[in-house]
Amino acid sequence: MTTETLVRDPTTRSGSDLNSEMAEIGRRAREAAVALGLASADSKIAALKNAAAAVRGREADILAANARDLAEAGAQGLSAALHDRLALDPKRVEAIAAGLEAVAALPDPVGRVLTEWTRPNGLHIQRVAVPLGVIGIIYESRPNVTADAGGLALKSGNAAILRGGSESFYSSRALVAALAEGLRSAGLPEAAIQLVPTRDRAAVGLMLAMSGVIDIIVPRGGPSLIERVQRESRIPVIAHLEGLCHTYVDAAADPEKARKIVLNAKMRRVSICGATETLLVDRAAKTQLPAILADLRAAGCELRGDPEVLAIDPGLEPATEADWRTEYLDAILAVHIVDGVEGAIQHIARFGSHHTDAIITEDEATAERFLREVDSAIVLVNASTQFADGGEFGMGAEIGISTQRLPPRGPVGAEQLTTYKYLVRGTGQVRP
Amino acid sequence: MTTETLVRDPTTRSGSDLNSEMAEIGRRAREAAVALGLASADSKIAALKNAAAAVRGREADILAANARDLAEAGAQGLSAALHDRLALDPKRVEAIAAGLEAVAALPDPVGRVLTEWTRPNGLHIQRVAVPLGVIGIIYESRPNVTADAGGLALKSGNAAILRGGSESFYSSRALVAALAEGLRSAGLPEAAIQLVPTRDRAAVGLMLAMSGVIDIIVPRGGPSLIERVQRESRIPVIAHLEGLCHTYVDAAADPEKARKIVLNAKMRRVSICGATETLLVDRAAKTQLPAILADLRAAGCELRGDPEVLAIDPGLEPATEADWRTEYLDAILAVHIVDGVEGAIQHIARFGSHHTDAIITEDEATAERFLREVDSAIVLVNASTQFADGGEFGMGAEIGISTQRLPPRGPVGAEQLTTYKYLVRGTGQVRP
Repeated sequence: MTTETLVRDPTTRSGSDLNSEMAEIGRRAREAAVALGLASADSKIAALKNAAAAVRGREADILAANARDLAEAGAQGLSAALHDRLALDPKRVEAIAAGLEAVAALPDPVGRVLTEWTRPNGLHIQRVAVPLGVIGIIYESRPNVTADAGGLALKSGNAAILRGGSESFYSSRALVAALAEGLRSAGLPEAAIQLVPTRDRAAVGLMLAMSGVIDIIVPRGGPSLIERVQRESRIPVIAHLEGLCHTYVDAAADPEKARKIVLNAKMRRVSICGATETLLVDRAAKTQLPAILADLRAAGCELRGDPEVLAIDPGLEPATEADWRTEYLDAILAVHIVDGVEGAIQHIARFGSHHTDAIITEDEATAERFLREVDSAIVLVNASTQFADGGEFGMGAEIGISTQRLPPRGPVGAEQLTTYKYLVRGTGQVRP
Repeated sequence: MTTETLVRDPTTRSGSDLNSEMAEIGRRAREAAVALGLASADSKIAALKNAAAAVRGREADILAANARDLAEAGAQGLSAALHDRLALDPKRVEAIAAGLEAVAALPDPVGRVLTEWTRPNGLHIQRVAVPLGVIGIIYESRPNVTADAGGLALKSGNAAILRGGSESFYSSRALVAALAEGLRSAGLPEAAIQLVPTRDRAAVGLMLAMSGVIDIIVPRGGPSLIERVQRESRIPVIAHLEGLCHTYVDAAADPEKARKIVLNAKMRRVSICGATETLLVDRAAKTQLPAILADLRAAGCELRGDPEVLAIDPGLEPATEADWRTEYLDAILAVHIVDGVEGAIQHIARFGSHHTDAIITEDEATAERFLREVDSAIVLVNASTQFADGGEFGMGAEIGISTQRLPPRGPVGAEQLTTYKYLVRGTGQVRP
């Protein structure tokens, strides 16, 4: 961004203005979190349905705001990939509205009795789901994330402070206005979903310092964002790291399933975190490789292989160790021969990112071993790694895929944006 | 500690020795975590039972080690409270062994299917409990924590790196030797439970920097330890902050229950995190106060009250706002008059530590409101706050009470030392 652009940017402000503005956003969010936490399931459903209606009713506003984002981004040179992530059209606006309705239709995650028991002394103990409180969500350019994240936070009774990608600022602002309309019409505080009102990057640092105001930070972005958050913030994080996903073709794989699944796992969409980046092939399944590689090549995939793969198909580029460590997010696949399921498990343990990994095999014992021993948030048998998605899991929508060890791990939907507390009902018990 | 003591301390070493020693401990822990994560329930039970037997068999060694700790601590001046926390006797050694057997008898927390469902496309999804990995536990002087923490980590399939209080170093070392004997006899790696082999405080800093080796840090200690951990470490934390617990006597309280519960909640043991620190009394329940205060005074409790309390009983010390913010961990109680359950909820929201709070009332609607609106890990009705304990919850033992918002929240036992992963079984599904 040039200095000239910065000066003209209507969303910049002085450091002290930003400080006090962020403090005020935090104060309003805490207040809203109390109201949201006690809101009935019906009022949250009404807010989400009304927000969906508002998105449809404001389609023209939203598209105009998006056109402004595209124009400003275009002035700075816009790649086709960024344009695709950023651009809205009537179909995408309708998908955003439908997504809010899908979240509305989910079971209410708050107040669920997760488990309960009675102690010998008569104390009755319940573990009950409650909201997290105030969630700070920091994400990149896709405008639909604004609606998904805001909607999921609302459904789970949390207040959200959203810091979207600066490229989608006006689009996000228009969407948050629709969400606010939904909240208002349901008698819930608009401050339950607030957008940081500036593209100034300093706002991220201020959010990370809002310990005691923001309860949880959810960074959804590249490794540099996640690292910054983990380094700077003392607020607990739900981390979404990279998806260095593997598909392993076992000796006992069904060749037709293997072809179909590998092609889908790599090429259906190459830019999502559940896309397969490394194909592992059992040495005893080498004969399946030519057909698999032919499919990928026909679909426009660049292939990189180890020497053993190159001996089968000299048309590949040679792969180096760096390839085993790379999340391409592109039409590139690294191919590696391994010694059976043991070799696959070892390779994944060494190079994987604990996100999503799949085995293709008809041998049940081998499948169960892979499921047990691969230490990833999602482990699949005979299915595409591209199913690593909250929607595909039946969660309605997702904020992302958590790759941290502590819960929530895997897809983060409304249920995963809750925590719990213990309710203990006695009749006068004292501890001996 | 004087320089002379430092020089004589057999557990000190040079910085570079400590660095390489900690790295080696980390390497062994990671290896052990893989084995423990895949260990059968039976082998973990055998290890725990054999460890209990080893504790009993090594009673003389353990008491001799404890005598050495007491002697060294005594040379530096040992308070009665610290002596009580630190000292072992045959009865306490037996309690440690029995505690390991209680953990052995718990249901195995690993491999539980937490929930499962089938998608319309036929994919079957399970959320299954798995160990966290390598847990670093940093705690203070009580030697029994070494056995509890080691035992719970083992039960939940984790490897543990224990950094105990320096005052209990030799006691902990003797207990870890017994745990190692249990592991060995069950064919499990001894490195599953390792004690940091030095009292050098630099070891804590090294542990906090072992990102990628230690998966979770569990600090169990005072606020300064917790703050240091949250400031220094990029490793996720299960935080145990202070317990500023309240008991609220409602207008509809049964006077006999109120007397009995308040006395127990404050005075049963004053030094535990579940002890009540502030008594809140409904203005409409003032008449109950004299009897409650008389019981407390008879038990040796120092009482501090607001002006309204002093008007009822001028024998109290005046309380200031600082009292509402103080976790005494001593025979001192702050007493405050509030306006009904609403006033109690507001006071707790402002001054509480989200740990444990109780209401005493016979009015069900008031009780339910308190349960719903008080935002603490544990909320009780008509029972003593001193039940805030994993053992009292039926968890066999606990590492502590988590006061963080993200799970695990509340008592941390074996089940809470697990996370989960998703197992997805398909028949060739690809994503449309």
